[in-house]
Amino acid sequence: MNLKIEGATILTMGSGGAIKDGTIIVENGQITDIGKSSQMRHKYPRLEKINGKDKVVIPGLVNTHHHAAMSLLRGYADDIPLQEWLEKWIWPLEAHMNGHDIYVGAMLTAVESILGGATTINTMYHYTSKENEAKALAESGVRGVVGHVCFSRRKEHDRKALKALAQTWHGKADGRLRVSVDPHATYTVDPEYMKELRETTTELNQKYGSSAQPITLHMHAAETADEPKKIKKAFNVPLKGGVFEYLESVKVLQGDVVAAHCVHLTEKDIKIIAKKGVKVSHCPVSNLKLGSGVSPVPKLLQSGATVSLGTDSSCSNNSSDMFEVMKITALLHKGINHNPTLVPAEQVLRMATIEGAKALTWDRQIGSIEVGKDADLVIIDFKKPHLSPLFSETSHLVYSAKSSDVDTVLVKGRVIMENRIVNTLNVDHILRLAQKTKERLLSKLRE
Amino acid sequence: MNLKIEGATILTMGSGGAIKDGTIIVENGQITDIGKSSQMRHKYPRLEKINGKDKVVIPGLVNTHHHAAMSLLRGYADDIPLQEWLEKWIWPLEAHMNGHDIYVGAMLTAVESILGGATTINTMYHYTSKENEAKALAESGVRGVVGHVCFSRRKEHDRKALKALAQTWHGKADGRLRVSVDPHATYTVDPEYMKELRETTTELNQKYGSSAQPITLHMHAAETADEPKKIKKAFNVPLKGGVFEYLESVKVLQGDVVAAHCVHLTEKDIKIIAKKGVKVSHCPVSNLKLGSGVSPVPKLLQSGATVSLGTDSSCSNNSSDMFEVMKITALLHKGINHNPTLVPAEQVLRMATIEGAKALTWDRQIGSIEVGKDADLVIIDFKKPHLSPLFSETSHLVYSAKSSDVDTVLVKGRVIMENRIVNTLNVDHILRLAQKTKERLLSKLRE
Repeated sequence: MNLKIEGATILTMGSGGAIKDGTIIVENGQITDIGKSSQMRHKYPRLEKINGKDKVVIPGLVNTHHHAAMSLLRGYADDIPLQEWLEKWIWPLEAHMNGHDIYVGAMLTAVESILGGATTINTMYHYTSKENEAKALAESGVRGVVGHVCFSRRKEHDRKALKALAQTWHGKADGRLRVSVDPHATYTVDPEYMKELRETTTELNQKYGSSAQPITLHMHAAETADEPKKIKKAFNVPLKGGVFEYLESVKVLQGDVVAAHCVHLTEKDIKIIAKKGVKVSHCPVSNLKLGSGVSPVPKLLQSGATVSLGTDSSCSNNSSDMFEVMKITALLHKGINHNPTLVPAEQVLRMATIEGAKALTWDRQIGSIEVGKDADLVIIDFKKPHLSPLFSETSHLVYSAKSSDVDTVLVKGRVIMENRIVNTLNVDHILRLAQKTKERLLSKLRE
Repeated sequence: MNLKIEGATILTMGSGGAIKDGTIIVENGQITDIGKSSQMRHKYPRLEKINGKDKVVIPGLVNTHHHAAMSLLRGYADDIPLQEWLEKWIWPLEAHMNGHDIYVGAMLTAVESILGGATTINTMYHYTSKENEAKALAESGVRGVVGHVCFSRRKEHDRKALKALAQTWHGKADGRLRVSVDPHATYTVDPEYMKELRETTTELNQKYGSSAQPITLHMHAAETADEPKKIKKAFNVPLKGGVFEYLESVKVLQGDVVAAHCVHLTEKDIKIIAKKGVKVSHCPVSNLKLGSGVSPVPKLLQSGATVSLGTDSSCSNNSSDMFEVMKITALLHKGINHNPTLVPAEQVLRMATIEGAKALTWDRQIGSIEVGKDADLVIIDFKKPHLSPLFSETSHLVYSAKSSDVDTVLVKGRVIMENRIVNTLNVDHILRLAQKTKERLLSKLRE
């Protein structure tokens, strides 16, 4: 559908800067023109119009670290020590999750994401060929990178799953879906397998990907302080430096790697991240909730690294709310470094949009509002008490706006939510499915 | 109006614990009965009913530190060093604020608070007899403690203002309004004046207050690391220990003191706070945003101190969102102490309700859902993707719910918001007033 958004304040997050009373023209899924409404009105008189009065348009938010299916476990277990949380709570329940459950969980995350203006989700979970996260994201209308998570303990299974995932889903759903190779973490994937997964990424790219549409690599790294110890213990490798020194030594690091967390880094790790072009997914809510610590984001930014934002799963967050992650990112580094000038609002908004797109090597298509890019647009209603009065749209978006202020969402030109009504899915049906699935999982535990 | 809320999950935050499919009876502003719906249906057949299906009822949230009028400056200046922020940005604009502006700003805060389920606001600002914060809170239907902020530099003015405030507003608006004596901070109120303000509180209580309806004392304390230095410099007092050692030495500390921030505390300070029954208002969003640091909340809790939650002003937050403050409180202390078991959800919900009521010495009337207490109730709609599936209401309230999930709000039995429509005020009119006031203030700056 072709349309125009007229009379809004547009934060392009690109070369166009901010445009007051601006108009965006969307044709065939792309942004074909942008400018002041006064100069655009006569040019496109017949296009269907979305009224942008009292609204602000930003690029769709990019959530660079998630496990979409795990929203089924939202609030299932909190405030518990990490190892107990995993071993006694999360893993036993996850063991009962089948393909349909994964599909339902991912659907729930997709709905929540749409309602909160996150149009792209980078998700790492178990791929099953029957039903899966990719199917859910495809149906929901959002954009996503869907990975299959790999462990040393199940290489054969992983090899098949990765191939099936790439073959079935890469570039599909009108190009809204991409796939990734996801080594779970440094201490669960042995050095040889890590190298193999790098080669697998290359091979899958040769077969199914392209430089314009690459298959990426998504992993957890440097999440907890004891990670170097865990690597040493698991693989008996001589490890003296930080986690990224180790990852460099196994030759997995390139510009296509999205490394989630990056909390415990040495100075040398930071240099390696910047030099190799590794993309950081900063997940402050999850890192705080699990007691992992705080990523040295100001240092990473200073080093020139690409730092994007992720919610992590709704199991350790417990929501998929990128507005919340933006605010907490802006607050946290100021607070713990005793410096109110660090990580200012404009930078945070970049992290959630254009830097997120860069993190997923998808910035040719998304991340900013520019002619030629796909129309992934989020329209935010600013006529709210908590967004009044208005001095700065950027300040309000980071420090005051809530996901519930998102009014309308477009992905690749398609209006997937309008006036907070999701067009692509039956939300009530998904809520019923989620509750039913939760009950089935709990009953399995009791068996 | 008398009514019943039927079929909701009730988190009483009191001796009743949690009640599934419960009913609350509200008569003449008070809670007169609570129980399982099955046992209550026949008892009160004719009462007007609010349907509680898929809803959770909690006590109205208590925001124990705010400067309500300052929402007019929301997003005016962020990401700036503290002293520059105050001296070059905030104070010059505030200098032009008249009584009407203060009224408009407080009205904006009241609307935002109602929409976010905060039914009681403890606010510190300049009292003017023409228009003021008390008038705004009274009209809006919320409950509040309205203070007048005192500085050594204007004792005469303060003395008059405090008397006028107490005389005009204490116990007014059907008992929804109380007043407080607000020494601004340890370094702006000299030791003699601090002692005087303690005496003033006693005198005003004798004249206008009572033990059932006390006039309290509200101040900033131990917000920044350099506060002991600032006190020394300002008043040339021999200061060796922490800020609360100093405050104890000037004999201001009692159980009626609400001390906002309490970030930089010595071990002895913490002991003094607990011993004297000083009420802490923890304002993590503001403390992070201004780069002040993180309050040692786990230690304060361990000492037995009453720790409540505040947003601080929308100038340093930038919202009046108690749900946000709850989540950030639950996250922050886990993260920086590397301990995911600290400050669990249940404790945080207590801090935002019953502990908040205790902080304001108002817990005989509010803070929990119990027979005989005033009906300050917040009904939250749980039929939302981000609140699905449901394992634990408490977890969802702290980690997943948003202020926009608040559906209906009662204060003293009066339904001041229903289905997100504020009954007491014209919201659009307030938004227009806020924008107009902001423009007037900016034009004054340019003069």
